[in-house]
Amino acid sequence: MTHPFLDLAPLSAAHFAAVERRVAGLLATEADVVIMQGEALLPLEGCVRGGARPGSTALNIVTGPYGQTFGNWLRDCGAEVVDLAVPFHTAVTADQVAEALAAHPGTDFVSLVHAEAATGNTNPVAAIGEVVRAHGALFMLDAVASVGAEPLLPDAWGVDLCVIGAQKAMGGPAGVSAVSVSERAWERLAANPRAPRRSYLSLLDWKERWIDAGRTVLPHAPAQLEMLALEACVERIEREGLAAVTARHASAAAATRAGVLALGGGFGPYVEDARDAAPVATTLRAPAGVDAASLVARALSADPSLPLVAGGGALAGEMIRVNHYGADATRGAVLSSLTALGSALAEHGRQVDVEAARSAVSETWPSE
Amino acid sequence: MTHPFLDLAPLSAAHFAAVERRVAGLLATEADVVIMQGEALLPLEGCVRGGARPGSTALNIVTGPYGQTFGNWLRDCGAEVVDLAVPFHTAVTADQVAEALAAHPGTDFVSLVHAEAATGNTNPVAAIGEVVRAHGALFMLDAVASVGAEPLLPDAWGVDLCVIGAQKAMGGPAGVSAVSVSERAWERLAANPRAPRRSYLSLLDWKERWIDAGRTVLPHAPAQLEMLALEACVERIEREGLAAVTARHASAAAATRAGVLALGGGFGPYVEDARDAAPVATTLRAPAGVDAASLVARALSADPSLPLVAGGGALAGEMIRVNHYGADATRGAVLSSLTALGSALAEHGRQVDVEAARSAVSETWPSE
Amino acid sequence: MTHPFLDLAPLSAAHFAAVERRVAGLLATEADVVIMQGEALLPLEGCVRGGARPGSTALNIVTGPYGQTFGNWLRDCGAEVVDLAVPFHTAVTADQVAEALAAHPGTDFVSLVHAEAATGNTNPVAAIGEVVRAHGALFMLDAVASVGAEPLLPDAWGVDLCVIGAQKAMGGPAGVSAVSVSERAWERLAANPRAPRRSYLSLLDWKERWIDAGRTVLPHAPAQLEMLALEACVERIEREGLAAVTARHASAAAATRAGVLALGGGFGPYVEDARDAAPVATTLRAPAGVDAASLVARALSADPSLPLVAGGGALAGEMIRVNHYGADATRGAVLSSLTALGSALAEHGRQVDVEAARSAVSETWPSE
Amino acid sequence: MTHPFLDLAPLSAAHFAAVERRVAGLLATEADVVIMQGEALLPLEGCVRGGARPGSTALNIVTGPYGQTFGNWLRDCGAEVVDLAVPFHTAVTADQVAEALAAHPGTDFVSLVHAEAATGNTNPVAAIGEVVRAHGALFMLDAVASVGAEPLLPDAWGVDLCVIGAQKAMGGPAGVSAVSVSERAWERLAANPRAPRRSYLSLLDWKERWIDAGRTVLPHAPAQLEMLALEACVERIEREGLAAVTARHASAAAATRAGVLALGGGFGPYVEDARDAAPVATTLRAPAGVDAASLVARALSADPSLPLVAGGGALAGEMIRVNHYGADATRGAVLSSLTALGSALAEHGRQVDVEAARSAVSETWPSE
Repeated sequence: MTHPFLDLAPLSAAHFAAVERRVAGLLATEADVVIMQGEALLPLEGCVRGGARPGSTALNIVTGPYGQTFGNWLRDCGAEVVDLAVPFHTAVTADQVAEALAAHPGTDFVSLVHAEAATGNTNPVAAIGEVVRAHGALFMLDAVASVGAEPLLPDAWGVDLCVIGAQKAMGGPAGVSAVSVSERAWERLAANPRAPRRSYLSLLDWKERWIDAGRTVLPHAPAQLEMLALEACVERIEREGLAAVTARHASAAAATRAGVLALGGGFGPYVEDARDAAPVATTLRAPAGVDAASLVARALSADPSLPLVAGGGALAGEMIRVNHYGADATRGAVLSSLTALGSALAEHGRQVDVEAARSAVSETWPSE
Repeated sequence: MTHPFLDLAPLSAAHFAAVERRVAGLLATEADVVIMQGEALLPLEGCVRGGARPGSTALNIVTGPYGQTFGNWLRDCGAEVVDLAVPFHTAVTADQVAEALAAHPGTDFVSLVHAEAATGNTNPVAAIGEVVRAHGALFMLDAVASVGAEPLLPDAWGVDLCVIGAQKAMGGPAGVSAVSVSERAWERLAANPRAPRRSYLSLLDWKERWIDAGRTVLPHAPAQLEMLALEACVERIEREGLAAVTARHASAAAATRAGVLALGGGFGPYVEDARDAAPVATTLRAPAGVDAASLVARALSADPSLPLVAGGGALAGEMIRVNHYGADATRGAVLSSLTALGSALAEHGRQVDVEAARSAVSETWPSE
Repeated sequence: MTHPFLDLAPLSAAHFAAVERRVAGLLATEADVVIMQGEALLPLEGCVRGGARPGSTALNIVTGPYGQTFGNWLRDCGAEVVDLAVPFHTAVTADQVAEALAAHPGTDFVSLVHAEAATGNTNPVAAIGEVVRAHGALFMLDAVASVGAEPLLPDAWGVDLCVIGAQKAMGGPAGVSAVSVSERAWERLAANPRAPRRSYLSLLDWKERWIDAGRTVLPHAPAQLEMLALEACVERIEREGLAAVTARHASAAAATRAGVLALGGGFGPYVEDARDAAPVATTLRAPAGVDAASLVARALSADPSLPLVAGGGALAGEMIRVNHYGADATRGAVLSSLTALGSALAEHGRQVDVEAARSAVSETWPSE
Repeated sequence: MTHPFLDLAPLSAAHFAAVERRVAGLLATEADVVIMQGEALLPLEGCVRGGARPGSTALNIVTGPYGQTFGNWLRDCGAEVVDLAVPFHTAVTADQVAEALAAHPGTDFVSLVHAEAATGNTNPVAAIGEVVRAHGALFMLDAVASVGAEPLLPDAWGVDLCVIGAQKAMGGPAGVSAVSVSERAWERLAANPRAPRRSYLSLLDWKERWIDAGRTVLPHAPAQLEMLALEACVERIEREGLAAVTARHASAAAATRAGVLALGGGFGPYVEDARDAAPVATTLRAPAGVDAASLVARALSADPSLPLVAGGGALAGEMIRVNHYGADATRGAVLSSLTALGSALAEHGRQVDVEAARSAVSETWPSE
């Protein structure tokens, strides 16, 4: 007999459905929620391939690196793609989206990333959703880096396909992910002869075999351990309160920004306007003449567990990212991160004021 | 600080690569092994969509229900599909395959299920592989229900794409799965302009971003808990010895078959020739006039944990499956299953000899 | 960062206190509950050494092997010990206890085992408690094998020191255990100059340093994993319902007894009167001429996971115990145990009727 | 069936014995090792009550708070107790011990704490052991706070009873603990008529029922989860290498001391001579006029996970302890601790140089 503490009954269909409902509660959505058995890229790809087709015109809003991935998928599907790209240190505005839609009146699909983990900006989804809804296009949102970190209300905002993963602010597993699907989205997918069917990518399979069949038999064996981890992390968020969790992330972002400004030494926030800064992570410009990667390496040599990452790709050498999500959305993590960056910069011969940075953090985010 | 017993470091690329190597060892293969982050349907679909294309001719060998799934995928890809279907209570023979290839000389893709969990038969892959290799076609094998239960030697047998999952005889998780890919298969996929690329389905993505890039950065966050569970189950098989594990499954199958024959009451093995019977599960024909589903329900009412399943689909009402894989590949599970079936049948008014069945099990599979 | 699913915060004093309250709920007691950091022998020893002293007269009721252990401890403490021993195949009666107390009016301590896991009998604690309370002695009960298996109401029954462990019917861990302590018991211990103080055995230490100090600082680091396992198993019992859990054990005992009688072959229940039989386990007499240990070995060779044990000590060779507690309190486990014993006996050349035994089980304990 | 990843076979006697051997390896001892099923106070109490008796003279060396506990136990046993107390900010010397033994030639028992977690000092056990062995007394060592943090060689040093727990530098569980017992110690216990027997406190029980009986049947059900956690932490130490683990603790202590001296602000090490400072934790004197408890509270308000503790008892208000053991024996933890203390002191209006402190840490303990 196995020990009761570690006893793990097989995941029943009813249990799976209960996790779905719990995730729907987190999103305050009345729409169907599908929990897909793979990383969030799986439902994102399923949404694009289900929603776009030859003859579609897609407005692909590019505010970070994932925009390119979505554009590639859209082109693969034969859609005409209009890329609306803004500099990564700003957010897109609803006006820009409205203009683009006016210029391309045939647009029937809009893709947007809510918060960009890599570049640290966040976009005004409520306002954009109003514009997209007025236009009548299907609206897909990648909310992996915003769920749990900031308000996310797909129904109120008119989001048709809202994709989330638990690995950022939710502090959960990466191996399963979820998407809410509006009635309009189901109709659109069903009408698309090229939408994935009988495929691991298919949302329609889940609708037919699982939802419409009464949620009694799972289409295939689920990733049981990841499902349990997802349930556990939603439960933890419910216990703390979703509002408290997002408030914690907002405080972490504000405190980091204030601390960086007080630290001096040439550091500055990468996202220029604080209102565009994502609560999930704060991106910084490395001081002129200082290589971001070596600065991060020096800071991590003191404490490899700090949530600091050097920018990659086009931003290599210039950008530093302070992650403050999940278990790192604490004053302690923010203080340690700024102190370590300050020390590393001081070793580099720059003048920094670590005490001022720590005070700014404490003032912006007082302990209760 | 968390407790050391439950401490879980993030899954590094090196750790991921080590699990790959361990799985390769289990398959005795020199080929690349890709561990895909989803159920085994994911790599199976990736193999078919990567290997087939318009202009392809595919020989789809149908010895159970999955053959139909593969046929659908192949047709989706635009391939000309030749279905070689045999009755589900027998195996296909290498001669039948040779004949079909001779009749369709343009065949460039062959798909086969090694062991059929649903119908209880297993196919002679070594002999079939020789025929397919002589013909020159790409050979894809679904080995989910055979790995761990019977010998599986993709390199020796000329299997180009060998897909496994851990949820049957390996006694492991269902949320990740693996495929070995021969050099020929990589070339074939690379030459297919319609092979999935930049997609959750794509094997080529894993080749380019992971294998060819030196296995240093994972393409996306893995299903960490399922990966650890996979590693743990391979480790357990290594400790027991793969030969011992497959021998245990072979004994379970032989003992179940012998027990059923001794039990009487009208039961009979569904797979007629013992050589065609899969070690993973034994399928039975319900006695004439007895409904399989209600017989199973009665047997399970005594002990719901018994590994008994009533057949579905076309076999509903007629077939009963005794699963004896993983933790159920034991004499105890076999004895309990046969006793419960015998009792249920006796309650039905049939004459059965439970003691004879138990003795037959013990003789066929003596305790050490 | 560790994975949220396995994340384990240190066990706080508040959490420890919450587990205490939960255990108190299980015992329906208003008394203090102390969770001691060791196997149940630890609080049992602490109770005896705290309650007895030179000058004490202790009535030690011996209905199984633990009675001897308690007698040794009592003598160690300098108490005058009166052993009231009854044959192990019966229960003691309240009249016998009343008689013994009348014969030894100075008795100030009574020790009793509620249910005997080794010999399979259970004692009428409610009636005995009334007698002991009328006499005025302190009443200690070892309820390790009864808690979760049958009603246990220390307050209603006048039990002053009620010791439990989770490793039997509760299906929980063995490494921590608990005792409820009445006000009278606390006074008695406090008045005993030889009661353990400043000792791992001491109940008074827990009172002074933990309970009276407001349960804010634990006296020493607890066995955290065992505490969590204890909490988990109480939670599981709450979910199923304590009444349902004890009913399941009662059914298992009744079904086992009925099955053995129907099986024939010379088997018989060891505890003669069904009303004296403990719900935790059913003890059997091996048929004349058959060695109990080899019969059990034969039955286990078919399925080593069956909950069958051969008697030890004076009962070696003669007694067989069918455990049906915790996860084994199921019809399936009872059926498998009886079938395996029947088969083993048949191999021994005895006439048994396994089908009749299985029918008797099913009739006594119908599936819902 | 439960999931293989979490599958937990019952702890066998052989497995228990294997953990014992592994712990013996960690202590480099040929003596018997007994793993007791409780916190380290359990074997410590068992050793004292087994080794001392009326007529004994015990030299109780008091270098921290535990000395008082041992003295109480020794007096309880009827021993004549000679307390050799030194100020807590120093270590005892072998000369002081030799003098005390010369003054009390009848001494037959010596008790010593190796490293004091509460006061931060460590004692020269090798030299003391030589003196004690020459005198012929039994030598008991409390090594809970030294095992894993500094060299510990009971056989080479002549320690007869060496008690360890895993909850400090080993980074393991607190619910089970171990003691190595020399042949001399066994003889001494066996000759003591008052040594605990048939008791949870008894070492002799474990010798008779477990060791001498061939380690085939455990005396009672063990705390299985804690045993597995103990095994896991020893395994982790073996993987890192015991020498590397103790070196990490030594570096943490040296770096903390250097950092405090560079920080200024009135802080100073509590243990005056660096050679007397324990690798497990560094104790500090709070600056004059600053309350230690409120300073620690302020530092923890920034990051409650920091390993900082205010002194208790007689040292309340004055002492601060920086724990750097187990998972906190890292440069990052040391840096964060000193930075937080420096900031808290700066908020108090004191002049501190956090950067100098951080540099001193980095110089004393360079990253590899």
